Amino acid sequence: MQKIIIIGGVAGGASAAVRARRLSESAEIILLERGPYVSFANCGLPYHIGGDIPNRQSLLLKTPADFATRFNVEVRIEQEVTAIDAAAQTLSIHNLRDGNIYTESYDRLLLSPGANPVVPPLPGIDLPGIFTLRNITDMDRILDHIQRHTPQHVTVVGGGFIGLEVTEALVQLGLRVTVLELGSQVMPPLDPEMAAPLHQVIRQHGVDLRLDTGLTAIHQESDNQLRLSLSDGAEQVTGMVLLSIGVKPDTHLAQTAGLALGARGGIAVNSLMQTSDAHIYAVGDAVETAEWVSGIPALFPLAGPANRQGRLAADNMLGRQHHYLRTQGTAICKVFDHSAGCVGMNEKSLQRLNRAYQKVYVHAADHAGYYPSAETISLKLLFSPDDGAILGAQATGKAGIDKRIDVIAVAQRAGLHVRDLENLELAYAPPFNSARDVVNQAGMLAANILNGDTAICHADRVDALDPATQCLLDIRTTGELGKFGEYPHALHIPLDELRQRLAELPRDKEIIIGCQSGLRGHVAYRMLSQLGFRAKNLSGGFKTWQAASPA
Amino acid sequence: MQKIIIIGGVAGGASAAVRARRLSESAEIILLERGPYVSFANCGLPYHIGGDIPNRQSLLLKTPADFATRFNVEVRIEQEVTAIDAAAQTLSIHNLRDGNIYTESYDRLLLSPGANPVVPPLPGIDLPGIFTLRNITDMDRILDHIQRHTPQHVTVVGGGFIGLEVTEALVQLGLRVTVLELGSQVMPPLDPEMAAPLHQVIRQHGVDLRLDTGLTAIHQESDNQLRLSLSDGAEQVTGMVLLSIGVKPDTHLAQTAGLALGARGGIAVNSLMQTSDAHIYAVGDAVETAEWVSGIPALFPLAGPANRQGRLAADNMLGRQHHYLRTQGTAICKVFDHSAGCVGMNEKSLQRLNRAYQKVYVHAADHAGYYPSAETISLKLLFSPDDGAILGAQATGKAGIDKRIDVIAVAQRAGLHVRDLENLELAYAPPFNSARDVVNQAGMLAANILNGDTAICHADRVDALDPATQCLLDIRTTGELGKFGEYPHALHIPLDELRQRLAELPRDKEIIIGCQSGLRGHVAYRMLSQLGFRAKNLSGGFKTWQAASPA
Repeated sequence: MQKIIIIGGVAGGASAAVRARRLSESAEIILLERGPYVSFANCGLPYHIGGDIPNRQSLLLKTPADFATRFNVEVRIEQEVTAIDAAAQTLSIHNLRDGNIYTESYDRLLLSPGANPVVPPLPGIDLPGIFTLRNITDMDRILDHIQRHTPQHVTVVGGGFIGLEVTEALVQLGLRVTVLELGSQVMPPLDPEMAAPLHQVIRQHGVDLRLDTGLTAIHQESDNQLRLSLSDGAEQVTGMVLLSIGVKPDTHLAQTAGLALGARGGIAVNSLMQTSDAHIYAVGDAVETAEWVSGIPALFPLAGPANRQGRLAADNMLGRQHHYLRTQGTAICKVFDHSAGCVGMNEKSLQRLNRAYQKVYVHAADHAGYYPSAETISLKLLFSPDDGAILGAQATGKAGIDKRIDVIAVAQRAGLHVRDLENLELAYAPPFNSARDVVNQAGMLAANILNGDTAICHADRVDALDPATQCLLDIRTTGELGKFGEYPHALHIPLDELRQRLAELPRDKEIIIGCQSGLRGHVAYRMLSQLGFRAKNLSGGFKTWQAASPA
Repeated sequence: MQKIIIIGGVAGGASAAVRARRLSESAEIILLERGPYVSFANCGLPYHIGGDIPNRQSLLLKTPADFATRFNVEVRIEQEVTAIDAAAQTLSIHNLRDGNIYTESYDRLLLSPGANPVVPPLPGIDLPGIFTLRNITDMDRILDHIQRHTPQHVTVVGGGFIGLEVTEALVQLGLRVTVLELGSQVMPPLDPEMAAPLHQVIRQHGVDLRLDTGLTAIHQESDNQLRLSLSDGAEQVTGMVLLSIGVKPDTHLAQTAGLALGARGGIAVNSLMQTSDAHIYAVGDAVETAEWVSGIPALFPLAGPANRQGRLAADNMLGRQHHYLRTQGTAICKVFDHSAGCVGMNEKSLQRLNRAYQKVYVHAADHAGYYPSAETISLKLLFSPDDGAILGAQATGKAGIDKRIDVIAVAQRAGLHVRDLENLELAYAPPFNSARDVVNQAGMLAANILNGDTAICHADRVDALDPATQCLLDIRTTGELGKFGEYPHALHIPLDELRQRLAELPRDKEIIIGCQSGLRGHVAYRMLSQLGFRAKNLSGGFKTWQAASPA
């Protein structure tokens, strides 16, 4: 009889336990969890704080009793594994309830320890009123603090996914919130020009978002107040600090057992989710998996991959040979009434790896513009000019972001050529889509580039325009200029007058065509280029230029 | 200079005109339209009737003037082409405005005539008060009739996409509506058990839905009233009849020109969208294209394919060689607060073609169950047991149907194995999804079948249960039995008691395991099959059984 021990009872660990039981009715399966809860919805924590999920109990997806009755899995909570003897295949376990230390043997061991919030070693970091949010206990502490001390103002440190979700939750509770972000943008998986519109959304909801600003020290100001020293020399008094700087893989146990780590500090695993010890598997936020495009091992603290890895590790612990491919890093985050999603690599990372890429921007409605409540989706698509591989995508907007990211995620995973996006046959009816979806449009733009049917440029070109050799041509209507703002130093000829006013265009200069979203610019580009002008269309038009340009 | 004439100014024709201009600034492009409008949003017509789209003008996407100023395309409305002389490459055109007949020559001709509503030759079919809905003029007539005659009751004949959209619109206007459907289900692209829940939705909204009921004759009852004779012998008095039985390709002109038609009555085209005359192309609702799975030419009156075909025909008319692949028939329809979508082949068609298939059902939440407003998605996935090809999918529910159908549409198009659906990395956060999406779950079920990890059966097996050799085991909780209803003649042992009550199970019979959605049934199946019982899990559980079983 196979004896399987799983360390860590959330996401990957929980998936593995139930999958293992389904595969083997006879295996002995023990799940050890350091904390008091297993199988809780950690992605739901911010939403309970904000009140969207009123019932705390609903975050506890499965109790130890559920595991026992339904799956015959023995769950032991508040058990900390202190050492692994890989040679002997035994564990030392510290029972946190009674303080006893005991030993368990295993045939196969699965590590699913997760990741810990990064807590920077700042002066005052241990003062009361400073929190992280990673598990039920953290959440309970935060809610308890809010109830007891009724802070009026909270400072969230870090503008990543969790930081923004918590910010929204706190705003919903009626608290004033400052977000400190050391970088120049929130949500690091996005490129700067894609994150920029979110800054506006966040500020419109009353949040004091401070970019390029770090926390340097924390002082006790009064009983219920902390005074924060910020990197820009400012000080701030706040009732509570929430640290959401990021997470780092919990590799303590793996390290003491002598298991190999990867370059990014996660547990190294092969495609069977096996660590450097063949009897020990590892999954979830603690491990490194190969990034989809580059193949380079990276950390992906995401629930979806953790769940799949857990299932797969169970398969392999029970003698199958199922291989994990790579991780695309598909992710989405609700940001007030907007959402932001991404898949694959971003431009920053592609540049870092010196990889050739092309990019296109689309701003188009999530469904037929004539049907009520159409909202603009802003999509950035990155692809390889060499082989047409889909490298990555990012999107923001009020509706339909998840769908477009999913569609591109499937296309990327399936190895479709970026050209194929043009022809995807997506479900259309006016409430759901346009006959040409945003993703189709992005595919058309990419195909136009690869076919040589268009030449595009980007916002940097506008900002570095050389008036001696270049001319910026704004083809929007006069009404749009007034409504949305103007490009600097542009010649203005509305598209519909262009054929009649060609004489006004310089023949000796490169013409940079700017419209509002990039769509009409392509029409003008085709006209001008065929008429002998040297032209380039500004991809994403005024919208992307505005987002990309320093305010 | 190339001279291109396009007949038909909606969807495919309009797309072709603007694409042709982008490709060639010098081509002469003339668009001839029989009706008074071009480039109107025909998919939006029902929503203007119902008031969702209050502004009629917003349905007119581009006017002839727009085509002229922006695209230098000459649009001539109210021009009926009466004959094509393919040898001479000329057209006879009847100017409906002044009655003149004139001739135009062409280098390339594109036919985009669309399809006409089927009007059955019934007694009384020409009486006033009987309408079809295909274009702006039809819509105007319907609204005019409603305003003038204020009917209290309307009869919609045909429960397909347009019939249901119009039904919803009429209900929104406060009218009582009867829907007559000759078949035993609405929305023919769905299989019966997937359409059945929609019957309930439609009836819950006060609609008098009569299945298996046709219209046989129409009589004038009084000034504003028609009396309908129905196939079941009943009669009905109504204020208005809306025929939405289906459409048939408008091939009149193609036929007189001697162009080849296909077996389904549409214009035959090759993958360049070229008809049997190399100078004449055809696109949209009038043509036959190869169905994705079978390769068999079929009719797909859908806006998305029409648009893409138009673009592609323009490419090819101007000397490129872009091939249209096949048509998946991806479609979606809003049905009150529900929606129904589909892609690929349905079970009915697979049976008709004698193709081997397997099917699985999933009923799962559109996003994390603990986050507010989660709604159940019911998904049916059809795949090939031989090569794992994704054959088709259908889904219904209140939210997220479009996304799942699109995800599967991309996977099918990319040629993914059904197993790959298990590992799709889709964007997850509680408001958008579950860590294991509905599509992932369907992939897991399919993989389980292909791996031999599960054996499933379907509702027909329950209905034809042989008590001598089979036993139906209901593993739901007692509460669920009371809430949702009971399987006939089932042995009831809740899943969580199953390991303790194995002795109650017959060892000499095949055990059909039924739960509510099919998910827990798999857990029970794994347990029982490993313990030596012969078992099968009922895919889709009670929900699918209920939908599949005659009421």
